[in-house]
Amino acid sequence: MPDANAPKINKGLDGIYVSESKICKVDGLNGKLYYRGYPIDDIAANCSFEEASYLILHGTLPNRGQLDEFSKSLSAERDLPTLVVDVIEDTASEKDPMHVLMSAVSLLPAFDEEADDAGEDANLRKSIRIISKMSSIVAAIGRYRNEGEEYVPPDKSLDHVENFMYMLNGKKPTKQEYDIMRIMFLLQLEHSSNASTFSAMVTGSSLSDIYSAVTSAIGTLKGPLHGEADEMALKMIEAIGNPDNTEKYIEDALAGKQRIMGFGHRIYKTYDPRAKILKKYLLELQEHSAEDVRKLTEIALRAEKMMIDKLGASHGIWPNVDFFAGPLYTAAGIQIDLFTPIFAASRATGWCAHLLEYWKENKLIRPLEYYTGPLDLKYLPIGERQ
Amino acid sequence: MPDANAPKINKGLDGIYVSESKICKVDGLNGKLYYRGYPIDDIAANCSFEEASYLILHGTLPNRGQLDEFSKSLSAERDLPTLVVDVIEDTASEKDPMHVLMSAVSLLPAFDEEADDAGEDANLRKSIRIISKMSSIVAAIGRYRNEGEEYVPPDKSLDHVENFMYMLNGKKPTKQEYDIMRIMFLLQLEHSSNASTFSAMVTGSSLSDIYSAVTSAIGTLKGPLHGEADEMALKMIEAIGNPDNTEKYIEDALAGKQRIMGFGHRIYKTYDPRAKILKKYLLELQEHSAEDVRKLTEIALRAEKMMIDKLGASHGIWPNVDFFAGPLYTAAGIQIDLFTPIFAASRATGWCAHLLEYWKENKLIRPLEYYTGPLDLKYLPIGERQ
Repeated sequence: MPDANAPKINKGLDGIYVSESKICKVDGLNGKLYYRGYPIDDIAANCSFEEASYLILHGTLPNRGQLDEFSKSLSAERDLPTLVVDVIEDTASEKDPMHVLMSAVSLLPAFDEEADDAGEDANLRKSIRIISKMSSIVAAIGRYRNEGEEYVPPDKSLDHVENFMYMLNGKKPTKQEYDIMRIMFLLQLEHSSNASTFSAMVTGSSLSDIYSAVTSAIGTLKGPLHGEADEMALKMIEAIGNPDNTEKYIEDALAGKQRIMGFGHRIYKTYDPRAKILKKYLLELQEHSAEDVRKLTEIALRAEKMMIDKLGASHGIWPNVDFFAGPLYTAAGIQIDLFTPIFAASRATGWCAHLLEYWKENKLIRPLEYYTGPLDLKYLPIGERQ
Repeated sequence: MPDANAPKINKGLDGIYVSESKICKVDGLNGKLYYRGYPIDDIAANCSFEEASYLILHGTLPNRGQLDEFSKSLSAERDLPTLVVDVIEDTASEKDPMHVLMSAVSLLPAFDEEADDAGEDANLRKSIRIISKMSSIVAAIGRYRNEGEEYVPPDKSLDHVENFMYMLNGKKPTKQEYDIMRIMFLLQLEHSSNASTFSAMVTGSSLSDIYSAVTSAIGTLKGPLHGEADEMALKMIEAIGNPDNTEKYIEDALAGKQRIMGFGHRIYKTYDPRAKILKKYLLELQEHSAEDVRKLTEIALRAEKMMIDKLGASHGIWPNVDFFAGPLYTAAGIQIDLFTPIFAASRATGWCAHLLEYWKENKLIRPLEYYTGPLDLKYLPIGERQ
């Protein structure tokens, strides 16, 4: 019998507004994305990581002096405590890199005298520490996943993205590698109150500290419904293997009601503007790419065409940011199991910006459940139970 | 100018139902709490930790065979990986014990072959591992916070609460210590979708693993608006110092609009049924207690009377579970900085039960934000910025 008193259950909080924000506008109907009011196309075309990270944290584009100071404070924080490097060394070779990242970040407050200082200035300094050190941690995880490689300490003369690639590979990136990684860092910086960002806000709302909140976000990003989608999209492209298999693979997958990773989005009901930017880069790269990247690109483009024909306008299922990421990362020499950790290292900016904003008018996030079980059951001694 | 298009913002998700649940009913108007339909008074009067933990995880009270099997599987999981003990040793003496707990739990999946197995049976086994090992971790943190003390390995012949006290103190608890800790573990096992449990659900909703979800919950519980309230309540009682100072202290605090920790609750608008149980225990203990506990108890009772007179019926602000916890923990020899970690070790059961339940009909939890900033700002080259 239906329960006449049952309240509306907001599964997944779909359509529920939890806060106001001035950080990021996702216009899902028109396929537009703004960071602090600036269209993502302009950000991608013009900004360094440091510039965009400053914009998202502070709300305005930095002038020369502000940018220099911010860049210096970021690079100054790149070193990792020895215990953190040791834990990465002990666990990274065989374990899930997102678990290793979570452990490493959760250890950082043990080495931060300001860990429990809840002041706004302290939280901004800790944000810079987290953004800086998470890149170092992800690079260290990448090193230790390859047998025989050792930790490469940061080079503070390099910019954020260059240093990441230097710590990962032991040498500076080529121009093409740098361009790809700059774009990947920029496009993943921030995306409003998605699951991981919301998770940071929930933890932060108890007035827990920023390290704990970012640790929650990492754990949430780890899930296959969230951060791992780009890894799964590339695995599908690799499984297709030969461009001429693409159409049959997609057809069979759709017939079997298999979900095609990299397509469809809770908010975007049209082409994800970030996917457009990535596709453009991929096309520009194509003629200079190695054989394997050219093949992945061809498969991706053929799969994209078929998916749009079948599900685009008719079902609102379009390519999202995850779909073209794989071939681009491959062109930059990034291994698949680092995609989600790099996403985390980039999104750290958005997580911290949301926490700083939410704490200005904090309220504990505590929704309700509707209880549908029995009441007033009689406790029976253990000998009398079935 | 007010924004005519602004949607309703559900700050803190107050009053928003996010799911159905059969685990726990909190009847805030009538001051009643049920675990799987059984009144909390019956649970507190009759159950061992193992029995109540089984009830919450499985939905029914165990018969003798089920309880024996469950108890055995819990005790078999008490050992900690060496790296986890090392990290606790390296960080526990000076650092926030909740950060240490978070790091330690986030390392556990690195030693679990089933870490990323999302099957229901595997998740139940992992729940038992987490519930068992979190008690060992909290005991180890307690050891290493005292200079000169070493890790005490678990004794698998003891029950869950006895073993916790054994690992913490290096000796078995007295009957009074055991009774207090049994009650504290039982009353903190579960409390519907509060902030930490909801945080576990948000992380779990991306289909991330159970270790990551529990790590998020620990980070959320750490906040002073949530798990730390019992520590702050005892600090206030200790600050009052002399029973005869109680009334003046409370009066001054209320006049200064200072929040009195341990009173008031988002859901309970009457006497928290758990606080009633704790108060009863405290009164029973009083004549057998040491001088310091008797003094804390007297202050607590006088503060309670005054708060109820001033704010109880008139403002719906009544004692909650945090208020009487401090004097009881003190009587069991538990130091204040372990209160929240013990809360976590107990609530691990509720977190895992909620995850197991939510995953049966999972939906990614992803609310919306309402963007209130500017749009279509023009990107200026850095030289042209103010």
